[in-house]
Amino acid sequence: MELRVTFLGPAASFSHQAAVETFGTSAELSPCLSFADAFAAVQQGKADYAIIPFENSTNGSVVQTLDLLADRLNLYGDVTVCGEHYLTVHHCLMIRKDHASSPDRPTYDSLTKLYTHPQAWGQCDIFLDKHFKGVERQDVSSTSKAAEIVSKETTERSAAIASHFAASYHGVEILAENIEDKADNTTRFLVLGNAQLELTARVPFENVKVSSARQQPGPLDTTLKTLISFMVNQDFPGALAEALLIFKAHGVNLTSINTRPSKKRAWQYVFFVECKRIPTAENKEAIARILHGLQEVTENCRDLGTWKDELPSN
Amino acid sequence: MELRVTFLGPAASFSHQAAVETFGTSAELSPCLSFADAFAAVQQGKADYAIIPFENSTNGSVVQTLDLLADRLNLYGDVTVCGEHYLTVHHCLMIRKDHASSPDRPTYDSLTKLYTHPQAWGQCDIFLDKHFKGVERQDVSSTSKAAEIVSKETTERSAAIASHFAASYHGVEILAENIEDKADNTTRFLVLGNAQLELTARVPFENVKVSSARQQPGPLDTTLKTLISFMVNQDFPGALAEALLIFKAHGVNLTSINTRPSKKRAWQYVFFVECKRIPTAENKEAIARILHGLQEVTENCRDLGTWKDELPSN
Repeated sequence: MELRVTFLGPAASFSHQAAVETFGTSAELSPCLSFADAFAAVQQGKADYAIIPFENSTNGSVVQTLDLLADRLNLYGDVTVCGEHYLTVHHCLMIRKDHASSPDRPTYDSLTKLYTHPQAWGQCDIFLDKHFKGVERQDVSSTSKAAEIVSKETTERSAAIASHFAASYHGVEILAENIEDKADNTTRFLVLGNAQLELTARVPFENVKVSSARQQPGPLDTTLKTLISFMVNQDFPGALAEALLIFKAHGVNLTSINTRPSKKRAWQYVFFVECKRIPTAENKEAIARILHGLQEVTENCRDLGTWKDELPSN
Repeated sequence: MELRVTFLGPAASFSHQAAVETFGTSAELSPCLSFADAFAAVQQGKADYAIIPFENSTNGSVVQTLDLLADRLNLYGDVTVCGEHYLTVHHCLMIRKDHASSPDRPTYDSLTKLYTHPQAWGQCDIFLDKHFKGVERQDVSSTSKAAEIVSKETTERSAAIASHFAASYHGVEILAENIEDKADNTTRFLVLGNAQLELTARVPFENVKVSSARQQPGPLDTTLKTLISFMVNQDFPGALAEALLIFKAHGVNLTSINTRPSKKRAWQYVFFVECKRIPTAENKEAIARILHGLQEVTENCRDLGTWKDELPSN
């Protein structure tokens, strides 16, 4: 039986591309309609893994993912982060295939309408300003949808801005590549799995992912990341500093902190602390000890998973 | 000359209401079109104060405000936070005045279309489900705009969901009050001023705001909040914990942490740390000492202002 992986849809989305790059094409990949559907699929064992965006280097955290990790209603107790994937966002300009091959192959000048997701216009400002000033723009719900629309259009001379991956998927022709302003706009995706592996009868993520085949790091040069969430009792001044000190006391480096409203009490927050370490004989038990320490000064402390750091050239 | 206060528009927005509650109606209040316009107006001395949303108890931080406070291009060096205002979000159902006074005053059943901002539908789910199942909904850009549309409509039997303040402003009639699901959905606004007070020739915020007249706290029972931003050098492991420790070492309580991408380097963050203290003879210099300490372990450390804590029943 194939590995079942769900990604945040639609088909040919950046999450889809991240899923292919992580699991290869032999896994059974299927889109889900929402972030919550991805969490539910993993919790209920309907998917072995889910892949969803977590953070973008320009736009910051994806709050939908943080809110589901906060798990305020205790729906996703078995969902655990077991991996990550970095995907650099490149945009292409694309048109319908038979337009491209016709004798009067469209030049930029002949295109009368552009389709893409609202965020992508801003990411391709310089290119659009140079070649498409004044050309009609139509917002659509995803860049993949833009590629799909253009693949089916018959009367207009239109183009879409979308990924190379979406162009291949929808069978359209690329006119220009890497039209984005910033070369290093990158999205980090999380791979979610079920902590009760026997439920899905699966092998651990480290053994299935494509990228581990490329790298084969020894256990000692692998950096591990861990994500931990907790709430702080606001009647206990200094509790937040106390909590963060525990990481330092165990020689583990804090790499990011995010907060979301707890929704239990106004102005109380769920903190998400991500930390990093190279495993050594000394710090083998560090995460267990940190969690133990956090339980004394925080509320609802939860270990959201440990996975291999995939940040390139770190 | 009147005090010139700008708020995030349109007229009758929640920011407008916060401005009236903070400065009274004797100030000259004018809307600005964007968050960046509010910052620019204060920096350039075109407004004495600006009031913009910072955080909502359900939806979390307002990233536009954080991104402008990060001031990556050094445009707003004189902008400083000098106050805050908490506003509880209440929604009303409202219709055009002469509809309300006509003999066939509309009942809920007779209304055929509803207007509001997309976020407000979700905040009034229970009420809408009970009384307006299947009724046509039209998204508009703000709740105030919804009230305005309904105030001008002549043929439809429509209603808007907006604030009491917007209903008064646009002269429409309220059919139902407090139709929101959650009674404690609150937005915190920041009051921005110019640190070079002589530029605007104004008195300090503490002396002009309406709310200080109500409360008159003695200096010793006033809690002060301070917002500080900094970046951490990622090549220096432990720097973030080190930075947060400095607050604790000076007896100042961390109350929230936010992060945004630095946009200088991928995966480097600007941290926003908010802290709180009751001023005492001992900690009089605490903020100055914290800033001094932070300069040694962080980059681009900046004091974004100190103001009086206005959180009710804290």
